[in-house]
Amino acid sequence: MAELVRVAVDAMGGDHAPAEIVKGAVEAVNADERVKVFLTGRKEEIEAQLKNHTFDTSRIEVVHAQEVIETAEPPVMAIRKKKDSSIVKALYMVKDGTCDAFVSAGSTGAVLVGGQVIVGKIKGVERAPLAPMIPTENGVALLIDCGANVDARPSHLVQFAKMGSIYMENVVGVPNPRVGIVNIGAEEEKGNALVKETFPLLKNCPEINFIGSVEARDIPMGGADVVVCEAFAGNVILKMYEGVGAVMLKKVKAGLMTSLRTKIGAWLVKPALKQTMKGFSTEEYGGAPLLGLNGLVVKTHGSSKAVEIRNSILQCVTFKEQRIADKIREKITLEN
Amino acid sequence: MAELVRVAVDAMGGDHAPAEIVKGAVEAVNADERVKVFLTGRKEEIEAQLKNHTFDTSRIEVVHAQEVIETAEPPVMAIRKKKDSSIVKALYMVKDGTCDAFVSAGSTGAVLVGGQVIVGKIKGVERAPLAPMIPTENGVALLIDCGANVDARPSHLVQFAKMGSIYMENVVGVPNPRVGIVNIGAEEEKGNALVKETFPLLKNCPEINFIGSVEARDIPMGGADVVVCEAFAGNVILKMYEGVGAVMLKKVKAGLMTSLRTKIGAWLVKPALKQTMKGFSTEEYGGAPLLGLNGLVVKTHGSSKAVEIRNSILQCVTFKEQRIADKIREKITLEN
Repeated sequence: MAELVRVAVDAMGGDHAPAEIVKGAVEAVNADERVKVFLTGRKEEIEAQLKNHTFDTSRIEVVHAQEVIETAEPPVMAIRKKKDSSIVKALYMVKDGTCDAFVSAGSTGAVLVGGQVIVGKIKGVERAPLAPMIPTENGVALLIDCGANVDARPSHLVQFAKMGSIYMENVVGVPNPRVGIVNIGAEEEKGNALVKETFPLLKNCPEINFIGSVEARDIPMGGADVVVCEAFAGNVILKMYEGVGAVMLKKVKAGLMTSLRTKIGAWLVKPALKQTMKGFSTEEYGGAPLLGLNGLVVKTHGSSKAVEIRNSILQCVTFKEQRIADKIREKITLEN
Repeated sequence: MAELVRVAVDAMGGDHAPAEIVKGAVEAVNADERVKVFLTGRKEEIEAQLKNHTFDTSRIEVVHAQEVIETAEPPVMAIRKKKDSSIVKALYMVKDGTCDAFVSAGSTGAVLVGGQVIVGKIKGVERAPLAPMIPTENGVALLIDCGANVDARPSHLVQFAKMGSIYMENVVGVPNPRVGIVNIGAEEEKGNALVKETFPLLKNCPEINFIGSVEARDIPMGGADVVVCEAFAGNVILKMYEGVGAVMLKKVKAGLMTSLRTKIGAWLVKPALKQTMKGFSTEEYGGAPLLGLNGLVVKTHGSSKAVEIRNSILQCVTFKEQRIADKIREKITLEN
């Protein structure tokens, strides 16, 4: 048998913890025999959930952690003080090599800060970007960076472009991914100071397939495979997806419920409509990796249910087998 | 009879010029007897269009301009060189007081640059922001700034908040409009350097109803009436509306056409669906004013048809009657 991929999972993080997290972990080990999960958190609560499931007991371990970091806590302080929390314990397991990866639906801030502080960045990596998959008209794109570190410098964005290309090519399977920089126009001379300074650096970067500027309008249309931006813009893009999507869905639903006529029509169209809309949600794509670390850290949406947790864990297998961290290390170290 | 509101209209600007522009101008003077329109552009082409319509000939004048500024031209150069263009001539008519306002569906860059350079900013106004209306779940909000001047400073954002409040209150009729600053989290300590510096300034500004940060997700939900941001973020927000909206509409349409069953259903739901979706489009709200100038300059979407041109012209009436430029002058001069 091949080597196991060992994934620490924050059993206490997210809106549906621990029930859905534990369920997702069980589904992951049942779906792929290369996976071993370490559930971190309150032992009794986790074990009470595990009793409801059937699984290979040699591939799920419970690691007790008494504390829980709440979403509202200031992350730096929480990481420093709550050493016995499900997040901090799991991150140390990645750091010391007990685990290959960590998946959490808990505090984004704590996962981002903890990932950089405890697991640590690959030598030469200036910043570890958070890179969620976003839906496009006929596929997906990688949005890099959506993390907590705003006010990026041009050199950061160049590293994001390289790391994002490696991820898209090796984990998602998009050959020679098209890299675009988010801009307010298509021309090279447009943009703010950051974009103007970064543009020529990307243009002169032989290892990536840089296609120039991508306007926000073209991101949902699939204008680029790797969408490079600093974290403030990335956050705005990601949350506009959620906001516009949610309001439009409400409008569609309202339209379907206006009269008896539309209600009958709704009954006829709903299943097909659900199907076509399904792919176009930012929550469909499991976790967002925090790239550039000495190990994999994956942040999933706070509202994640078992299916997202399962997918995020399974994603770690590809990440490890494709040796993404090594590939990033090679590419970034080469530069320095 | 009250004083006429004199609006210069760029008959050569936009995808559907001159036919739809001329039609919109005719509809505006027919809809409101306080309106007089000066159509700038190639006289022969404009007059050929005017022949198709019936209107009070004393309230539409044609002002010949031989040149047209194309969308792709670098704006600063175009404004400087093409003195005999429909845009430059119209802007000089606002500057010298022949007209109160200018409406164009042409080159955004040329309108923005020309507005500031030719019409000129109100004394004390540091930057003239472009402020389109955006749809929200149950109404509209003003997104300020979406212009071409990126890398704003905190003092600019404070002026945007004040000018936006005046516009929302007096033109749109929202009493005591809620002002929010676009941010990546709700807490005061979040954000990039610009937002962190601007936040306390807005908080200590007695003339506006500042409600704190607004996350991008909450903008379409109606989280604020005046959405303050620098132009790069504003452009991303506006274009994400367009992009996500367009792709979701395609998905809905695809869902309605998957089978005979859904096609019958589609026939039943389509009229109501169209109705509920209609309000949620960025193109519904006519033009975006360029605020803070010595006169009104309105930029409408390049794809504008007669109805948007008409609405943009009629908007100028409220703008003039509510003395928006005066109110901005009073508020900004007070500060200096």
